[in-house]
Amino acid sequence: MSTDSGLLAPVRAGTPVEHTVADPAWLQAMLDAEAGLARAQARLGFVPVEAAETITALARAEHLDLASLAHRSRAAANPVVAFVADFTAVVAGADLDTAEYVHFGSTSQDIWDTALVLVARRAGALLLADLDRTCAALAELAREHRDTPAVARTLAQHAVPTTFGLRAAGWLTGVLAARHELAVALLALPVQLGGAAGTLAGYVQAARRTDPDLDPALLGDSLLAAYAAELDLAEPVLPWHTDRTPLVRLATALALVTGALGKLAVDVQLLSRTEIAEVAEPGAPGRGASSAMPHKRNPVLATMIRAAALQLPQLVATVSQCMLAEDERPGGAWHAEWQPLRECLRLAGGAAYTAVELVEGLTVDADRMRTNLNITGADVVSERIAAVLAETVGKKRATQLATRPEEQPPELTDPTDYTGAAGALVDRALARFGERRTVPALA
Amino acid sequence: MSTDSGLLAPVRAGTPVEHTVADPAWLQAMLDAEAGLARAQARLGFVPVEAAETITALARAEHLDLASLAHRSRAAANPVVAFVADFTAVVAGADLDTAEYVHFGSTSQDIWDTALVLVARRAGALLLADLDRTCAALAELAREHRDTPAVARTLAQHAVPTTFGLRAAGWLTGVLAARHELAVALLALPVQLGGAAGTLAGYVQAARRTDPDLDPALLGDSLLAAYAAELDLAEPVLPWHTDRTPLVRLATALALVTGALGKLAVDVQLLSRTEIAEVAEPGAPGRGASSAMPHKRNPVLATMIRAAALQLPQLVATVSQCMLAEDERPGGAWHAEWQPLRECLRLAGGAAYTAVELVEGLTVDADRMRTNLNITGADVVSERIAAVLAETVGKKRATQLATRPEEQPPELTDPTDYTGAAGALVDRALARFGERRTVPALA
Amino acid sequence: MSTDSGLLAPVRAGTPVEHTVADPAWLQAMLDAEAGLARAQARLGFVPVEAAETITALARAEHLDLASLAHRSRAAANPVVAFVADFTAVVAGADLDTAEYVHFGSTSQDIWDTALVLVARRAGALLLADLDRTCAALAELAREHRDTPAVARTLAQHAVPTTFGLRAAGWLTGVLAARHELAVALLALPVQLGGAAGTLAGYVQAARRTDPDLDPALLGDSLLAAYAAELDLAEPVLPWHTDRTPLVRLATALALVTGALGKLAVDVQLLSRTEIAEVAEPGAPGRGASSAMPHKRNPVLATMIRAAALQLPQLVATVSQCMLAEDERPGGAWHAEWQPLRECLRLAGGAAYTAVELVEGLTVDADRMRTNLNITGADVVSERIAAVLAETVGKKRATQLATRPEEQPPELTDPTDYTGAAGALVDRALARFGERRTVPALA
Amino acid sequence: MSTDSGLLAPVRAGTPVEHTVADPAWLQAMLDAEAGLARAQARLGFVPVEAAETITALARAEHLDLASLAHRSRAAANPVVAFVADFTAVVAGADLDTAEYVHFGSTSQDIWDTALVLVARRAGALLLADLDRTCAALAELAREHRDTPAVARTLAQHAVPTTFGLRAAGWLTGVLAARHELAVALLALPVQLGGAAGTLAGYVQAARRTDPDLDPALLGDSLLAAYAAELDLAEPVLPWHTDRTPLVRLATALALVTGALGKLAVDVQLLSRTEIAEVAEPGAPGRGASSAMPHKRNPVLATMIRAAALQLPQLVATVSQCMLAEDERPGGAWHAEWQPLRECLRLAGGAAYTAVELVEGLTVDADRMRTNLNITGADVVSERIAAVLAETVGKKRATQLATRPEEQPPELTDPTDYTGAAGALVDRALARFGERRTVPALA
Repeated sequence: MSTDSGLLAPVRAGTPVEHTVADPAWLQAMLDAEAGLARAQARLGFVPVEAAETITALARAEHLDLASLAHRSRAAANPVVAFVADFTAVVAGADLDTAEYVHFGSTSQDIWDTALVLVARRAGALLLADLDRTCAALAELAREHRDTPAVARTLAQHAVPTTFGLRAAGWLTGVLAARHELAVALLALPVQLGGAAGTLAGYVQAARRTDPDLDPALLGDSLLAAYAAELDLAEPVLPWHTDRTPLVRLATALALVTGALGKLAVDVQLLSRTEIAEVAEPGAPGRGASSAMPHKRNPVLATMIRAAALQLPQLVATVSQCMLAEDERPGGAWHAEWQPLRECLRLAGGAAYTAVELVEGLTVDADRMRTNLNITGADVVSERIAAVLAETVGKKRATQLATRPEEQPPELTDPTDYTGAAGALVDRALARFGERRTVPALA
Repeated sequence: MSTDSGLLAPVRAGTPVEHTVADPAWLQAMLDAEAGLARAQARLGFVPVEAAETITALARAEHLDLASLAHRSRAAANPVVAFVADFTAVVAGADLDTAEYVHFGSTSQDIWDTALVLVARRAGALLLADLDRTCAALAELAREHRDTPAVARTLAQHAVPTTFGLRAAGWLTGVLAARHELAVALLALPVQLGGAAGTLAGYVQAARRTDPDLDPALLGDSLLAAYAAELDLAEPVLPWHTDRTPLVRLATALALVTGALGKLAVDVQLLSRTEIAEVAEPGAPGRGASSAMPHKRNPVLATMIRAAALQLPQLVATVSQCMLAEDERPGGAWHAEWQPLRECLRLAGGAAYTAVELVEGLTVDADRMRTNLNITGADVVSERIAAVLAETVGKKRATQLATRPEEQPPELTDPTDYTGAAGALVDRALARFGERRTVPALA
Repeated sequence: MSTDSGLLAPVRAGTPVEHTVADPAWLQAMLDAEAGLARAQARLGFVPVEAAETITALARAEHLDLASLAHRSRAAANPVVAFVADFTAVVAGADLDTAEYVHFGSTSQDIWDTALVLVARRAGALLLADLDRTCAALAELAREHRDTPAVARTLAQHAVPTTFGLRAAGWLTGVLAARHELAVALLALPVQLGGAAGTLAGYVQAARRTDPDLDPALLGDSLLAAYAAELDLAEPVLPWHTDRTPLVRLATALALVTGALGKLAVDVQLLSRTEIAEVAEPGAPGRGASSAMPHKRNPVLATMIRAAALQLPQLVATVSQCMLAEDERPGGAWHAEWQPLRECLRLAGGAAYTAVELVEGLTVDADRMRTNLNITGADVVSERIAAVLAETVGKKRATQLATRPEEQPPELTDPTDYTGAAGALVDRALARFGERRTVPALA
Repeated sequence: MSTDSGLLAPVRAGTPVEHTVADPAWLQAMLDAEAGLARAQARLGFVPVEAAETITALARAEHLDLASLAHRSRAAANPVVAFVADFTAVVAGADLDTAEYVHFGSTSQDIWDTALVLVARRAGALLLADLDRTCAALAELAREHRDTPAVARTLAQHAVPTTFGLRAAGWLTGVLAARHELAVALLALPVQLGGAAGTLAGYVQAARRTDPDLDPALLGDSLLAAYAAELDLAEPVLPWHTDRTPLVRLATALALVTGALGKLAVDVQLLSRTEIAEVAEPGAPGRGASSAMPHKRNPVLATMIRAAALQLPQLVATVSQCMLAEDERPGGAWHAEWQPLRECLRLAGGAAYTAVELVEGLTVDADRMRTNLNITGADVVSERIAAVLAETVGKKRATQLATRPEEQPPELTDPTDYTGAAGALVDRALARFGERRTVPALA
């Protein structure tokens, strides 16, 4: 039975990232982890090359019964024990001798953590692509509206003039920073390889079947490197069974993504309020409809992004809490990471997917921005008036006088003439965007 | 495609509660909410009785395409708009006039929130039953081991003697308290009924088709009552579109459940450590197996419970954060509740299901408890020795002398004679358990 | 040195609740716990009445050096060991024999947890009083504006008409519910009394100095009851050293308080936006000022409340996480509760204090509400138009037609005539408020 | 009144970091931010050099009334408005003209955020130093016990042999990674400079008093650079009033610190359990004492560290949640960051301070490790036996046979001969430690 079709999570329902992190994809990643291990061991001569090839060829999720694995996971508190049994049987069905090399010298956590990392990398690639599109669209908005005057608001009140371009540039730098952190976190994700308790003893023992005099130190270095190379993942200094730094960094980067997109979303919601109406979400047939009110066009893209952004920080907290992983493998702290990490990936992935749609089609109403800017009248430049008056009457008295801006000369009170260095700041952000584009993307 | 078969959540994989909160069950609850609404309106004469009966008869999840609803949920940021269209089409297929009475005067949030509450009630009934079995088994342990001496440990060190019965009684009172809070929170769950913005205007308008002179006040009172009665849920004072107290209470009660069970789980893990070995999880074929180490028998039931308990507090925080629901319906805070609440229900449900298995089959080794108690020798009663010495030499000097307990008379140093009121405290807990059993369970 | 004068927490800086939970108040509560224990033991004849009186008389925070206690707390991971030494010295300075009865048979956690509960009760009383004032002011707003038309907003867009009274009634029911939960949680707070490991053995031993043949069962029942009576706190079934349900309930109730007040605050912020301007915070000299812009009047009360509300859910999660308290006293989970609980108390307390100020002085602009309601024109009743049209052309076609409301007759499109049962719902909320007022307040 | 002397937080009570982040230090940092701003403006010729010097000389916390500032912070929801008034008065007292240049063109958030960053940098320097000492001591433990056999434990059960050196190396790599992230996050902390709404308009206006034809673009670039240089902080691309990435990264790095130290702490607690006793915390007079049990020596250092580690993840979640900062300055999301960030700094700082004490004095009992390793007998190498048997009878049959290890030849069952690549892995970790030491520390 499908327990989750996305019904409760519109932000990712039916999106590519949802498939990339779904149970079947996880199962495939477990198979990829086993196959990569066999190939790494074959590279070093401990597994026959043909065996590694056969294992790789058979490592396809459709050969296994996912629901059965899920249910039998209760016996071991993880699905790997049942998975190894089933996959071994699949391989044994093809070649009995090759089956001896499945999960050869390995342990559940090596396979599971490596699978998790593979899933994260694959979802991460989708995310980076969507963030790149989002950044490009935001950069375009910033460029186009570099000098479009708008009112800045602080603590919910009109403050001073700004430009819509600077607002867009602010969104851009936030998303850029998150994109950078995510790329770094993804690139740092290491294979997991330690054996039953992190000493690699199982792999040493397995290798000794071929080379009884093997030096464990050599095996350690070479196997870690070979496994990382096979799966195109980072090589860890040590097995990280109980050092969960890579996962906390990943989860945090995903929260930065939803945080930056969430900032954009709350602004879009506010700016598209009926009374403000400075921007509007892109229309589409049926989008934003209400089941009760025919006239409604709700900012649903921003709403879905914000809903995701409200969930990540606490999910990250759970992952972070799991750093308190006792012994050589903890009873609970490891197991509590999995679903929250998947949730972070698919919520952030859904948010990025949704952000592309939102930003690429955002409607900007510069006239309305000007109209709103005028609501506050000369008050919106009270800061400037106070500054000018201060030159003659001093700061203290000027602050009092500035609350009567209507008495000031018009050359002081034109709000479009008080946008400071907004344009130059936009240029700074665009320059940074230009630089960042040269950072090598994840394959 | 099945995105979630439970592969990442052994604690609830394949358990009854998992089905009760899965997408199909949620869809059924939405249909139940619509059908209940039609019947409530029929009770009051605003919908033909036959129409309500037809709607009720057709309100079956198998008539609808769940995956399509999930994907189309992105257009409205919730699946109700698409759901109403599809269900209306189903009813129209049977009878065109009746279709006019589907979702009659209603709004998405009324249906969705009521469905959520129905799902929670159904999952909650399973939870209460499993908690009752857990409590009964814990009470039995407390009774049986009322006077079984064991060492109490504080800050990871031997402290003073206690009894295993008192430890079990402590687990019992924790689970009892959580069970009580859960029952109360479930009983308090109200129907949602407010119409587009909580004024009931849509329902008033719908009712006026039959009774043009209808007094809105009467409609409000009678429709809220009728809807609650139809679905056997509580009647709210007001629509609670933006007062999420009932959901925070529910989520909190679920965290109390996993908190109380998690306390039990961490104790079982500690007491079943190789060096301590005072209790053992019930064995079962394949249970507790390792993919690497044939000798392993891991405390997997406790591990799964603890993994759940590590996740609830943060999920509850997300639900709690969503109380900041702006306007008459928020853009994000409402949407962010759904998945976390489901996660709370199925994790707590899985934990309760697992706890039954754990507690009913727990093996207790009273001999080993005695052996461990003796490790610390007379030091384990240093408190008593200090107290006795204090009678003659004063408290300060006594504390110094008590660190040399080996010099004390044996009648002072028998640890089994220093369990205080442990037995009487067990009796207090069992008495409370007896009282609580009389609390009417949820139907 | 003062590490915290409230500089980083304006919401509670200098408020009464801040003092009630400050370190000196905590120290006083520890003394009250010791004195109460001595009196309870005196009631039962185990401590001379004069000794209990002397201990009570000397139990004043000014006799102790708070900073020294704080620093020496590092030796035991809690301040009680140093505190008992210092307080014993104070008593010994007055009467050497009486000093023997300080902390008689007791343990650190009994004193600390009881002190925490006393602090919570005292802060809670302030909170309840401020919530009562807030509720009264909200009820007044609801009553006065029972029929004041306003536009309801959902997902940031104009939805249908409502009344400002219903909005205020919604705030009221939220705060009322939180107030109720808080009162219940406070009344349920029990004394802590268990001795070193929850068996009461230390107290039994202490009592046997007077009555060597004492039945431990009798001591348990009578001492728990006497201690609860002395401090006017609830009597627990068992010592709750590792059953933290009472604290989770307390923390949750406080989060309900800030959640309900936070909902009010975000609404006030939105409604006081420059473009909306339907309400305004009460003015006061200097309030809402900016360091840069003389014209600014920021909604600072709402801002402070919202800032508190953003913090509670996660603090509660920490307290909730601490339910996983291993053994008979955990090494960390107990210690991690203290500061988060205090933070919950003072943030919620500050928010309630601030809410009184906000709600009692809120300015409501009914004219502006009418103006805003008219912005959307007849569209704001598109729901109604669709319903009326549906009577003749069917629901589906009506929904399409309703998007052209300008073609409808005026009697359908007056928004003030489409507020449904809003008035009656206000009456329901006020009736509930009336009932709740009769609930006995905490002393 | 001192509301917080550390009484509720032994982990940081009286430690250097507590002072570094206390209210007086925060006030001093605000003054440093103002003085730095004046000097930066003087560098560019917009403020007389003498004025900047006078402002810098007068920028001392003792000239201001901290408690008054804290209480008056309620008027603006932050203390900066009152602070600017008071500091301006101080300067005016010395020289009226110079007072015109206090907070010249500035805004509250520029000063407050920059002050926060300065405080974080100062606390961070203490943290890095303590983490370096901790790492050095862990490296020494790893080196010394590179080949000390011990039992590895997974899911609370004996697993396979390992070495204590590898366990220490695991602690080391975790702390090293956290130290690295913290150093990077601290170095990335930027000055805040944007003016009232991030356009720098106030600073442009101020500069135009000297140079009426000033190009705003030049001012933006040069003033950001000058301010960063004056305070030795990073230069941001844009004002980050509503892009809180730097603070989330900082908070996350602090959680990595407590996560890595917390992992160490839970292991120390487990390994020092009475029944296990493989390590012991360093003794000190009075340390680890109980108020009830004279014999107790509690692992209090680990307890305090763990208590801190339980709090950080949720505090970080609050900071992360605040990324949803609406408009150009949010009403609440900004304000909710301050106390949680301070709490992160002082809890992590206290944990690092405590870890130095713990690790530098940790007692390691290699004999006891050997004794415990022997408890499980040959079972502890069942993995190896199964591997060897598999060579002849196949993996499946071997797994069954391996559960009877007692029938195996002794050369297979010596646990100290089955530590895999543990030694080589220790060497890898020590090599990494060597490299990392060359990373330039924060000044």
